[in-house]
Amino acid sequence: MKNTAVLLLSSPMPLARKGVVAAISQFLVAHNGSILHSDDHLDPGRDLFLSKLEWDLDGFDLPISEFEEHFQPVAERFMIKYHLALSDYRPKVAILVSAYDHCLADLLYRHSTGELACDIVGIIGNHPTAKPLADFHQVPFHLLTNPQDKRESEREMLELLGQEVDLIVLARYMQILGPEFVGQYLLRIINIHHSFLPAFIGAKPYHQAFDRGVKLIGATSHYVTATLDGGPIIEQDVVRVSHRDTVDDLVRKGRDLEKLVLSRAVRWHLENRILVYQNKTVVFV
Amino acid sequence: MKNTAVLLLSSPMPLARKGVVAAISQFLVAHNGSILHSDDHLDPGRDLFLSKLEWDLDGFDLPISEFEEHFQPVAERFMIKYHLALSDYRPKVAILVSAYDHCLADLLYRHSTGELACDIVGIIGNHPTAKPLADFHQVPFHLLTNPQDKRESEREMLELLGQEVDLIVLARYMQILGPEFVGQYLLRIINIHHSFLPAFIGAKPYHQAFDRGVKLIGATSHYVTATLDGGPIIEQDVVRVSHRDTVDDLVRKGRDLEKLVLSRAVRWHLENRILVYQNKTVVFV
Amino acid sequence: MKNTAVLLLSSPMPLARKGVVAAISQFLVAHNGSILHSDDHLDPGRDLFLSKLEWDLDGFDLPISEFEEHFQPVAERFMIKYHLALSDYRPKVAILVSAYDHCLADLLYRHSTGELACDIVGIIGNHPTAKPLADFHQVPFHLLTNPQDKRESEREMLELLGQEVDLIVLARYMQILGPEFVGQYLLRIINIHHSFLPAFIGAKPYHQAFDRGVKLIGATSHYVTATLDGGPIIEQDVVRVSHRDTVDDLVRKGRDLEKLVLSRAVRWHLENRILVYQNKTVVFV
Amino acid sequence: MKNTAVLLLSSPMPLARKGVVAAISQFLVAHNGSILHSDDHLDPGRDLFLSKLEWDLDGFDLPISEFEEHFQPVAERFMIKYHLALSDYRPKVAILVSAYDHCLADLLYRHSTGELACDIVGIIGNHPTAKPLADFHQVPFHLLTNPQDKRESEREMLELLGQEVDLIVLARYMQILGPEFVGQYLLRIINIHHSFLPAFIGAKPYHQAFDRGVKLIGATSHYVTATLDGGPIIEQDVVRVSHRDTVDDLVRKGRDLEKLVLSRAVRWHLENRILVYQNKTVVFV
Repeated sequence: MKNTAVLLLSSPMPLARKGVVAAISQFLVAHNGSILHSDDHLDPGRDLFLSKLEWDLDGFDLPISEFEEHFQPVAERFMIKYHLALSDYRPKVAILVSAYDHCLADLLYRHSTGELACDIVGIIGNHPTAKPLADFHQVPFHLLTNPQDKRESEREMLELLGQEVDLIVLARYMQILGPEFVGQYLLRIINIHHSFLPAFIGAKPYHQAFDRGVKLIGATSHYVTATLDGGPIIEQDVVRVSHRDTVDDLVRKGRDLEKLVLSRAVRWHLENRILVYQNKTVVFV
Repeated sequence: MKNTAVLLLSSPMPLARKGVVAAISQFLVAHNGSILHSDDHLDPGRDLFLSKLEWDLDGFDLPISEFEEHFQPVAERFMIKYHLALSDYRPKVAILVSAYDHCLADLLYRHSTGELACDIVGIIGNHPTAKPLADFHQVPFHLLTNPQDKRESEREMLELLGQEVDLIVLARYMQILGPEFVGQYLLRIINIHHSFLPAFIGAKPYHQAFDRGVKLIGATSHYVTATLDGGPIIEQDVVRVSHRDTVDDLVRKGRDLEKLVLSRAVRWHLENRILVYQNKTVVFV
Repeated sequence: MKNTAVLLLSSPMPLARKGVVAAISQFLVAHNGSILHSDDHLDPGRDLFLSKLEWDLDGFDLPISEFEEHFQPVAERFMIKYHLALSDYRPKVAILVSAYDHCLADLLYRHSTGELACDIVGIIGNHPTAKPLADFHQVPFHLLTNPQDKRESEREMLELLGQEVDLIVLARYMQILGPEFVGQYLLRIINIHHSFLPAFIGAKPYHQAFDRGVKLIGATSHYVTATLDGGPIIEQDVVRVSHRDTVDDLVRKGRDLEKLVLSRAVRWHLENRILVYQNKTVVFV
Repeated sequence: MKNTAVLLLSSPMPLARKGVVAAISQFLVAHNGSILHSDDHLDPGRDLFLSKLEWDLDGFDLPISEFEEHFQPVAERFMIKYHLALSDYRPKVAILVSAYDHCLADLLYRHSTGELACDIVGIIGNHPTAKPLADFHQVPFHLLTNPQDKRESEREMLELLGQEVDLIVLARYMQILGPEFVGQYLLRIINIHHSFLPAFIGAKPYHQAFDRGVKLIGATSHYVTATLDGGPIIEQDVVRVSHRDTVDDLVRKGRDLEKLVLSRAVRWHLENRILVYQNKTVVFV
């Protein structure tokens, strides 16, 4: 069990050029912090310096609660925006699901193997299918009382989730969330869309793909924003299809894609590898 | 050098169920034709039986010029629409190109290795870049006299190409062809579009992809129809990109995709593997 | 629920050239059988004609129990070896498993969605891990009484499985089966090996891959024969790795590969798509 | 045209933990060097810190010729081994080729588009095929006087290449180089092997792959060492094959793989992205 801190940060150019790496690493060394991994990136417009930095907390002589205060001068000098995360914190995750439970089953299994370092605090369904699976994995399952009423359902979910939930995963949750709900969990809701976005936005993407006669189908995981299927893309993948494949075959092949693409996004989010800017993601892998 | 005939055919269901395979194979056996390969396909709507059939012409006792006449009763009985092609016929191919010549260079090289069984009868450019390459491969190069004038250019091309050309390949030809020109060569023009269609239709797809922050970029080869980037898709492929990639990197990575995806489509067309119906392709590979 | 018959057959060339397709399709038509799909293949050495043929049993006027008798003359004339399978028969499948249960969990989930058309009659483990999972899916679980004793375990399994089992799936069963056991279930045991065979045969392939510094890791599903990891390959796939990946990362990435590659092989076997000859497989997909 | 310096370095742990990043970045800042990109990596055994660092030379107040002298104290303190490369230096590359010229044609075309930032100083062939292609690209072509005599050929090549050549690319050069020749250009010879190493080492890998019935074929680019096909792997890729593919099809599909896999390796080498240790490569992409 590692005991490290991760800093995801951005700093505007040309300010960053004047030694942001030196300043930060200097700061960490001064507090006896040993850098385990750093990866940085100049955004292609060359306006922004983006970086992920991980250091060992064993021996680090600054209480992490005082980090912000002490780091303040460095942050100000380089106009650094940052997010600090600790490896020993286990994020609280809620999963929303509808009738199709393959992504849910996949996430629960991965969680059971230790692949997803989080606590799954609850599953909310607008359909009862997933209940036995939730029980098997000993995760509380909550069935929405009135799944047809979207506003009421969101109110109900907000109450259930509260402020404690760090991440909401839409594991094929087939209801579009309203802006109010989304606004409460900005960049903390990950969705899986069963197409290679921006192709086939909206409903029934496999049918759309079938009708267009594409030779590959895809899946896309992304953060949810107010724009339908328009949020920052985290991960995408595709699989080959042919004229032999019916819509049912596309659905079947797509299930495997969806599981892979959603679970990668969730894992990267939990491992603090994702930095969002300008409606895009930088994934430090 | 093989001496075979290929039949690409369709027959409506439920008529086809009443023995179309038996009838055709019976017909061929009756003329001492030995089937080398057959592959058939029931379209997912189960409305149409589609098939590719190849047989040896050595020993086939029916002169191929009389095939249509003798096959007529079978065709009528099952309402078969078919296309007959002979392996010893070398299709005549013209290539249209603009400033970027990577697809052209790739096609010419493949042709030189024998990978594309055709005669490349000419290259038409609206830009002089490709001239030396054409010369090296000893293929006539024609520079359009007034490349800015689309109507005039198409008239000029129609004159040059005439009726003898079996296939026109748009190897990154950056001019949209008019409906009249397209109508002259229906399902005989193959284009490469540098995106994963239907995502990023139209101009500058790599810039569009970059702006959207996708994690894969694609290329699509398709038959040209009156609808921009809307014709039957023949082949698609993708390559992974990341936040590190600039638009220039996308362009570079895309070049390799375009070459592969276009050359596969051309080869399959030349090998009589493609059957088009309902704005889709069946590729018998 | 379809009601069809599938014929997987081979016939030696040049005998097959003399009308094997016509003869078989003629035979089926004579009995009012309507061919739904046929796909054939001439092996590259051109010695053998291989084919898969599926026809509708609705209206087929020959009782399937009398098929062999009536088909005999055709089979003899073309020296056809064949396997006849019926779509309404649900094969009986047993799964062998050790401590790692990801492939088992995957197979059971797929089975629950209807993706694998079979009855899973039992799970045998040389380790108790998989018991709760088996219980959840209501499949009998049998723990080997003396898992260290290979001979004794095989005797125990033979007794449990008997002759009724159509397919045995080794879902990461980490014990090499003896020739006697294998001989009892020839071409009816499918194994998943966690490497891209023939690279990294034997134990700890992910460690071997890591040590060699490969840039892709793979998984291979194959029929089990007397030669270790040497049986006919059914399916393979790979995933990219980099210097950042530890052996644990390889194991994690590999799990996803193994699940996909094993489940495809099992599905294809159950759907009668696989024909084995010369220690290779023809997969009609 | 950028004017930057790249440092590829390693430093043993736990020494590196005591502030190697801070010390180097501090050193650069002190000389007004602005870091454009840094990427580091702790090898999985956690014994070695590996890093790539690129900084802007515009404004850097230390003449690059004096870098070594001034950097010495930092290097000694952390036992840093490093390689310094300048973006404005164009490496000199020689290409060795036999009868198959697809990789050569590909490299020359890429070079012509600016994709490979180097000077191709010569092509040496043990077969005359590639001569016209070399002429077209205006690169000197040298045909070995006695290609059958391996020792004599290597002597001849050593004379031709001298010490000035930075990189030798074996573009399907079908002759195994002796240890003496290899020793002269350690980690400066890149080969393409037409299999997914370590599968199918040695001669005729496509035939070996065909005989084994694999479902994917691969290609591997690697640095040449004294062990046949055993040097550090730089890049690998695969393509799907099926029972329909003859050995000739494998060869054809393989050509595309070989071109991609070799050209990526060459580009990464030229862009100073590759760090070799323990017979493996770290590729900073």
